[in-house]
Amino acid sequence: MISSSAVPDAALRLLVDNGFDATSVDALAEAAGISRSTFFRRFGSKEEMVFADQEAIIHHLETVLATSSQPPLRAVVSAALAVFDQHTARPEAAALRHRLLQDVPALRDRELVSTHRYERAFSRFLADEDVSSRSSGRALAIGYAAAVVAVHNDHLRGWLKDNAPTHRIGLEADLEAFAGLFEARMLPAAPAKPPTPAAATVVVTVNGGGADTEAVLAQVRRALESQQGK
Amino acid sequence: MISSSAVPDAALRLLVDNGFDATSVDALAEAAGISRSTFFRRFGSKEEMVFADQEAIIHHLETVLATSSQPPLRAVVSAALAVFDQHTARPEAAALRHRLLQDVPALRDRELVSTHRYERAFSRFLADEDVSSRSSGRALAIGYAAAVVAVHNDHLRGWLKDNAPTHRIGLEADLEAFAGLFEARMLPAAPAKPPTPAAATVVVTVNGGGADTEAVLAQVRRALESQQGK
Repeated sequence: MISSSAVPDAALRLLVDNGFDATSVDALAEAAGISRSTFFRRFGSKEEMVFADQEAIIHHLETVLATSSQPPLRAVVSAALAVFDQHTARPEAAALRHRLLQDVPALRDRELVSTHRYERAFSRFLADEDVSSRSSGRALAIGYAAAVVAVHNDHLRGWLKDNAPTHRIGLEADLEAFAGLFEARMLPAAPAKPPTPAAATVVVTVNGGGADTEAVLAQVRRALESQQGK
Repeated sequence: MISSSAVPDAALRLLVDNGFDATSVDALAEAAGISRSTFFRRFGSKEEMVFADQEAIIHHLETVLATSSQPPLRAVVSAALAVFDQHTARPEAAALRHRLLQDVPALRDRELVSTHRYERAFSRFLADEDVSSRSSGRALAIGYAAAVVAVHNDHLRGWLKDNAPTHRIGLEADLEAFAGLFEARMLPAAPAKPPTPAAATVVVTVNGGGADTEAVLAQVRRALESQQGK
């Protein structure tokens, strides 16, 4: 969960109500119930205050990645879900922050920059996890990280509109699908099965009709699998 | 190619040599060989000047997408390669711009915002192309667009370091791989083949050894294909 240095709702509300530029640090400090010097020590500046939660979320994300025992692509899924949960844990603060960002283009741009930090954290993690050692592995790691963040942001925007719990479910399903899609290309090929005790000799006889390779193979597969009781 | 309103190298060099903040619009206009009023009419501001090429590239990208007759994911590959070509068409301007962005964090942030516009242009195009109508299609379109842009940016950063032509080759290979990866999930299933004239009856006899399904299938495939002269 977000640490105690989280942005106080009252300060965010003041920024939304009075406008970002028109609100003084003194007024923000008062709304937050802290002194001016505590405000500067804790947040650094008015703009930094708006993004203080973001900093906490980045650290949380890095912790989730560093302590994960899952396969790398699944660890990224868990971390992205953790980010979503952090963003949505305080609906009122999230709504205020969203309104503020809609009003102030410079803050919206900075938001983009901060989501780029999630992306970098993910692709660095995947690089360290040796995902990049395969051919095209670097591109796949970078592409996967970018895709995960983009889809996370899309679902978060959806949630900001209606706070519906279905957005998290959709995010999880989409991220699982991405992980499956990339996993096949990224991870080392499964270790070869131990050789069968003796090689089988296969005789194929095709009677009648055109021998469509795929159709024949499908029939063979069915026959073998029913034989093996699958 | 970039239009005639492209940023003059001399103006970029001045910004690099003198520093962004210390360079006046008058000095930039003089370096570019235009009047102060033409400078403002053409670029709007000092910062806008640095990103004027970006604007031209976005328009070019949208044109490539709008006029493409390729399948949607391949159209995005072509557009991303066109963006790369635009960025790398004037190596000196690219190098100057890159140095400027390294020196000025605010410009670097704005660069990120502008690459996000590529991403949005791609995902909007894919949404319009009805890629999103499949289940999870929206996420796949958004993820694909983000992945393409991230990998493009990675190769462009590589090129900025050494101007080697191999970066474009690597980019094309990576983008083709992404297109292949996503295509299987995104596009409607291929229409069913017309049924073969008469169904073939297949008899498979496996002599000796364990009947490993995949191994048998591989043997059958080889046998059928050699029979068909493939």
